[in-house]
Parts: sequence; C-alpha cells; structure tokens
Amino acid sequence: MTDDQRSIANNQSLYLKSEKALFMDAVLATLTANQSAALETLKELLRIPSVSAISAHKPDVRRAAEFVRNQLSSAGLTTELVETAGHPIVYAEWLQAADAPTVLIYGHYDVQPPDPLDKWVTPAFEPTVRDGYIWARGATDDKGQMLTHVLSVAAWLKTTGRLPINVKFVIEGEEEVGSDNLDTFLDTRREQLRSDVAVISDTSQYAPGIPAVTYGLRGILACEVRVHGPKQDLHSGIFGGSITNPANALARLIGSLHDANGRVQIPGFYDDVQPLTDSERAGFAALPFNEKDFFASVGVEAGWGEAGFTSTERRWARPTCDVNGLTAGYQGEGPKTIIPSWASAKITCRLVPNQDAHKLSKSLGSFLNANCPPGCRVEFLEHHGCPGFVADANSPFMAAAKAAIERAFGTAPVLIREGGSIPVVATLKQMLGIDTLLLGWGQNTDNLHSPNEHFSIADFHKGTLASACLWQEIANRAQ
Amino acid sequence: MTDDQRSIANNQSLYLKSEKALFMDAVLATLTANQSAALETLKELLRIPSVSAISAHKPDVRRAAEFVRNQLSSAGLTTELVETAGHPIVYAEWLQAADAPTVLIYGHYDVQPPDPLDKWVTPAFEPTVRDGYIWARGATDDKGQMLTHVLSVAAWLKTTGRLPINVKFVIEGEEEVGSDNLDTFLDTRREQLRSDVAVISDTSQYAPGIPAVTYGLRGILACEVRVHGPKQDLHSGIFGGSITNPANALARLIGSLHDANGRVQIPGFYDDVQPLTDSERAGFAALPFNEKDFFASVGVEAGWGEAGFTSTERRWARPTCDVNGLTAGYQGEGPKTIIPSWASAKITCRLVPNQDAHKLSKSLGSFLNANCPPGCRVEFLEHHGCPGFVADANSPFMAAAKAAIERAFGTAPVLIREGGSIPVVATLKQMLGIDTLLLGWGQNTDNLHSPNEHFSIADFHKGTLASACLWQEIANRAQ
Repeated sequence: MTDDQRSIANNQSLYLKSEKALFMDAVLATLTANQSAALETLKELLRIPSVSAISAHKPDVRRAAEFVRNQLSSAGLTTELVETAGHPIVYAEWLQAADAPTVLIYGHYDVQPPDPLDKWVTPAFEPTVRDGYIWARGATDDKGQMLTHVLSVAAWLKTTGRLPINVKFVIEGEEEVGSDNLDTFLDTRREQLRSDVAVISDTSQYAPGIPAVTYGLRGILACEVRVHGPKQDLHSGIFGGSITNPANALARLIGSLHDANGRVQIPGFYDDVQPLTDSERAGFAALPFNEKDFFASVGVEAGWGEAGFTSTERRWARPTCDVNGLTAGYQGEGPKTIIPSWASAKITCRLVPNQDAHKLSKSLGSFLNANCPPGCRVEFLEHHGCPGFVADANSPFMAAAKAAIERAFGTAPVLIREGGSIPVVATLKQMLGIDTLLLGWGQNTDNLHSPNEHFSIADFHKGTLASACLWQEIANRAQ
Repeated sequence: MTDDQRSIANNQSLYLKSEKALFMDAVLATLTANQSAALETLKELLRIPSVSAISAHKPDVRRAAEFVRNQLSSAGLTTELVETAGHPIVYAEWLQAADAPTVLIYGHYDVQPPDPLDKWVTPAFEPTVRDGYIWARGATDDKGQMLTHVLSVAAWLKTTGRLPINVKFVIEGEEEVGSDNLDTFLDTRREQLRSDVAVISDTSQYAPGIPAVTYGLRGILACEVRVHGPKQDLHSGIFGGSITNPANALARLIGSLHDANGRVQIPGFYDDVQPLTDSERAGFAALPFNEKDFFASVGVEAGWGEAGFTSTERRWARPTCDVNGLTAGYQGEGPKTIIPSWASAKITCRLVPNQDAHKLSKSLGSFLNANCPPGCRVEFLEHHGCPGFVADANSPFMAAAKAAIERAFGTAPVLIREGGSIPVVATLKQMLGIDTLLLGWGQNTDNLHSPNEHFSIADFHKGTLASACLWQEIANRAQ
C-alpha cells in the first residue's frame, strides 16, 4: 500500500465512520419518534392469549406466531412459519450485510397460563398502562423483550434501507412448555442458522436503574431416587427395628449428600468446576446487595450454603444439590404406624461450567447405591440435564453489548451471572458453536409466571434503542 | 390346730381338689359336646357387619353389642349396655366366688372394614367353613377369640352353677377406631372394675402348633416434625445454594437420628430402657425362627437394625425410631425445579419398659430443634404415646395360663413378646394396677385387617377349653 492509498483508505474509514454515526442517530430518532406506535404494536401482541400449555389456545398461539411473522415481513425480512410437532417457529432473516457478522436472535411468543385470574388487577390479556408500566401476561416474558429486537431491526431497515449486520430470528412458541421441538429445528438447520453470536432478551436487569449483561448461567441435572424396601407397607410394631425402613434410609442418603460445610459429597462433584476468578468475585462483591433484605424477601432470617462463598457466589456460580420433593408412606392427618414400602426424592443439581450433567448423574447414582443400607434397593432415574454457560466477558460482542446498553440506558451495565438455566443457550453453543449475549430489559420483580405481570414502558423503549445500537456496535468491532 | 383338726382339713382339701377336678372335667365335657352350637353362635355374631369406622353400620354395631350382652345374660351374668359418646360398651359380671380372685376380660365386638370386597373368596359377612377354618371379617379379630371366654364362662355356669373365680367382662365396640371412649369408662368405674388380673385374647400364637403367652408389648410415641423454610416454594435456580432447603434439612435431621450401628441418637433415648435378661434372650433364641424366611416373607433380602441384637430382640424388646411418612414439595411426574417451602415427617418410636413417651417426645423435639440449620425452623408435634409393658413371667397368673393352655392345646406355650402396642394393657396397669395375660388363639397369618380373614376352628375350640381351664387354674393358685 502506498502512502496515497493509505491516506485514501484512512479518509474513507473516517467517512464511513461518520456515515455510520449519522445512520445510527437517524435510527434512534426514528425509534424515538415512533414510541407510541411501538407500544401499540406490543399491546396488539399482548392481546393474543398465546398460552402454549393449554390446547384450547392453540389457534391463539398460531395467531401470535403469524403476528410476529408479519411484523418481520413488513420490516423487510424473509420469513417462514416453520411447522413442528407442536406450535410453529417463526424464522426470519436479512442477510445482505456482506462480510459483516451474523447475529441469531432467539425469543418466544408463547406465554404462561394467566391463572389465578382473580388475582389480576386488570385482565391478563387486556394490556393496560398504569404507573409507567404495561400490565399483561407476556409483557416482559417474553413478548415485550423479544419485540424490542423486531422493532430495532424494522427501524434500521425503514430508516437506512439496510442493517449493519446480518440477522436470523428464531422465535418459538413452546418455551413455556419445555421447547420440545426446538432442538430438532436447530439440529436440522445447522447450516442455515450459522451465526457469529446469539442475542436473547429473556432475563432481567440487576435492579431498577442498574442494567446488566448476564454472562453466565448454571446448568442443571434433574433426577429422582426411589428407595425400595419391603414389598408392601409393614406394621411398624410387628416389624419395626428388624426391617430396614426405606424412608429412614432415603433421609440418611440425602443427609449424606452434604458435609457440615455445605459441600456436596458426591465423589468427583467439584472436579470439573470452573472456579470463580478473583475479578469475578470482586465484581460480584461490588454490586449493591443487602443480604438481610434478600433473606427477608423470601421470609427467612438466614441462609446456609457452601462455606467460603458469599450468597451471590453461591447462587450464581457454585453448584448445588437440592431436594425438590419427598414422598413416602402416610401423608394424611395424624399418625399411621407403618414402615413404608418405598420412599422417593426429586433432586436437582445446579451445575456450573465445566461440570457434565450425565457424568455427575452416574456418580450420584453410584454414590446412592453404594451407601444404601442392606434390606433396601436404590432405583435411580435421570430426568434431564444441561451444562452451565459462561461467555467470554472480554469478547468484542460483550464490549458491543456494554456500549449499546450504556448509550441507550445512560449508564454502563453491570456484569452478572444468573443461577437458573436457559437450555437453548447451551444448545446454541453446542450445535452452532456460538456464545449468547443475555440482555435483559426487565426486572426480577416483574411478576413473571405470576399474576400482574408487567414491564416498564421506559425500559421497553430503552431496550429497543439498545438493540438498535447493538447491531452497529457489533459491526464496528468486527472490522 | 390339733392333729385331728389337721387331718380333717387335709381330707377336706383332698375332697375339694377332687371336686374341682370333677367340675373341670364336666365343664370341658360340656364344651366338647356343644362345639357345633358354639360354632353356630360364632357364625351368628360374624353375620353382623359391626364395622365401627363406617357410620352407616352404626345400627349393626349396636346389634353386635346386644348379641354379646344377650350371650352373657343367658349365661347368668349381670349385664349392662353402657352408652358412650360413640359405640356402646358391653359390661357383665359374675361375682359370687367369695374370696376367689377377680378376672377382668377385655375384648371387642367391632371389626375392620371389609374392603376390598372383590378380594374375598366368600363374602366378608357370610361366615363360611372351608379347610378347617371359618372365613369372615372378625373371625379372629376379635369376635372369635373374644367369644371363647364368653362360651367358657357360660359352660362353667351351665355345668356347675358357679365359677371358680369372679369375672368382669368389658367388651367394647371402638377398638378398631382408637378406643376413644374406653379410657373414660375405665376411669369413671375404677372401683367397679377392681380386679386381680386381666385377660385379653387379641394376639396370636407364635406359629401353627406353637401356642404362646405374650408377656410383653412395646409402647409407642407418635409424632410429627415439620421443617419450615422460605415463605413459598422458590426457584431452585435463582435461589439454590444460598437459601436453606427444608427438605434437605429434614433429611439430614432424620439421618442423624441413628448412628452407623443403628443406635438411636436422641439424647437419653436408652436411659430408661429395661434391658433384656439373659433368660429372655435365651428363650427368644430357642424359638424356631428362620431369619431368611422371615425376610423373604416381606420381600427383602436382609434386615438392618441395632447392632448386638437379633431380629427377634430388635422387634420385640428394643426401641425404634421409624419414619412412617415423608412429604415435601413436588410429588408429581417428572422434575420441578423448586426449593420447597416446608418438609414434614411422621415419626413413631416403639418404646420398651420403662421408657416414658412424653419425656422422649420432649427430648426428640429438642434434638431436632438444636440440629436444625440456620434459615429453617422446626415445628414439632406429639400425637400420642403409651408405655411399653412387660408382665411378671413368674407370677401365679402366668403359671395358671401356661397350665391351662398346655391342657387344652396338648403342648406347653412358649413365652413371647410382641412389637406392637395394645394401649388398653398399659391403661389397665395404670388405672387398675393389674397385669394382663395376653392369650392369643389365632395366627399372624389369619389376614387380620385384610380380605379373607379366617380362624382355625380347632383353635377356636382349644381356646375355649383353655379359657375354661384358666379360671380353675387361677383359682387353684390363689389358695
């Protein structure tokens, strides 16, 4: 390259940057000018009772899918309503940004059942604006949050005729019922879905006024153990003391899953655990957090967990072994003098990278079998599992997300992890090899899955602006 | 006393002994001659569906009471149908044996529900003779066994016009529903019921062909523990690891109730335990017992219990701490990712003399409270308790029972204890200060409380003969 060539390239780059900035400003202006219309679009979607769990709502679920598809078609994307064994998946793409990265946007248009109906201040499917919030089932989970990306893409195309990146939308209708048909869709379309990063807005900000990027999730191992004893319930007087009691045996087995320091005793449980880095621990510690208030919010006076870790570390980044249910013998009123024939426990372990659910399931099964007393027999069943997830917090995509959120929200987001599991994130990593940016615009207190679900209208708009900025920020960093 | 006087007294004693023996032979002859009639009487009683638990059967329950009362009136006893808040108690007495001991005979005329009806080979309330057994609900528990004493007393009075002892019958109609009104009856009539010994035939022989006297029973402490955690079920992803899980906590508490040697760890649990004597242990060890068959009969391959004791010792004469039921969180199909708000366990401890149920209840409650982890709270509830019982195996009453059974069954009874509890035995000890002779004519395999209940007709008759002998044997030993 000659000096002249260099100078031209430099000028061109300056010119392009400036053009980008102008485009960006114009897109944001479009969005700002059309906030009322955006809210009306959200309301229209919220009026459709797309409850995926209830078969009577099947036509409504399809109507919601078609609504989302129409929004994307009108915006200028190529769309497809993909039939599945259950509810359809909306697929849409715009791939005309040659040499620019491709972003896969995942969301869902189905919602939780609205019950109990009598607890709603205004009806679940009659979206109402009150106190700066929009109140309706699905307002935040996930119609409102998902729509921010549809709106931002539409604004880009409307304002500039193009997008700074390529986008592929996958909006499913079975997230609230286990996403039974999503894996097949992703698996059979690996080539078509090839992308550089995924974006999901189905989490929350850290707290009001504190936007966040969630860079880690826990995985899960869900299983069940049943301890079998005598062939039928026995008289505890005639047999008690001489026959192994399966309920006592189960309790003893579960009691042995933790030591006095809250450490899980399943052999090898911590072998593959990716430890928290010093900077992560410092980051968590720097977040505003009142432990007393946290405990009080769930009605307890204290917590208990793995020694050597804070409450935040314990719930975001350390593995657990929790009993979700116990069943044995007599559960009615008063006493019944039996040795139960069997006793069972539902158990979920929350996992962190790089624990392997299936490997730990085998280890747990062996541990329970090995410690089962004579006269009883352990039956162990693995329900399902998915690995934990940690994104590279220093990737250009992460930097793009931080910059986009800071511009839209006026404050830099905090980096957080969450203790729950979003299986699609692990699936996207596994099948497409991509990380996911988890960008939540809602709050933990938005009553997701409860009556009076709501979503801050200001955050709905800020989320849309952040989404619009994100496409440009990703494009900037790819050069 | 002169030599003459001594000689006369001696002859008189011989004469009297000889008269007693003649009387006894005559009574036994009467019973033997009237076995068909006795069986018909039993059948008549068994046809009355006196199911105390089912209110629709209330008139039938009263009919059974009146039937028993009529049998006792016809025999020559003074009778009373004592009204209670529930079903009536039949009281009857014959008190004309001056200076002779008084025996209180307890039994019950009510029966368990017959369900499931479709499992009966012949209908529950249509007594049928088949293979040497009489098949009907209540055949052995307790109509058949109780009736042996009514028949023996009737035969004595019919044959000789008198009884060698005084008798007081207390036949209740609420044994199968908790004997709610029995204690009040016993308490308000302490004076009237004053006796020297009680007799109950509501247990079993040791095995076919091996009659038994049961000289010990275990007591019971029935209680419930509920561990309270968060005010509602929590998401195990969002909170898991930082909030104490009540189901894990309960399991750990229950697991800590025993050490690795099967010893109960409640402080002071064994302090008051009356140890087995060497002769008791030798007696138990001498009983025919195939441990492998015992385990196989309930479908297990092995047992587990307090180290240093045999299976028989563990179930008859050592205290236990058994879980009867567990309840927590999710119990449906598949997994549910929650930390349950609470978890509960039903617990019964079988007690042996001289453990005190209420004292141990306090100790157990304190133990659970003291070991409950932070973030949870223990709620402890005592349902009820009754002490264990051991009769003096060398008393004249016990010797009388052994002699009576040996004569009637042709083989000496073995001395056994049973692991269950019969609260009235403790009540009789406590309120009237008397021991109870537990003389079972049935078998453990008679399907008590199950379909196809039955009772050996031969043992019904032998039991009646043994009862007749018992009155004379008791009288003999009182002189």
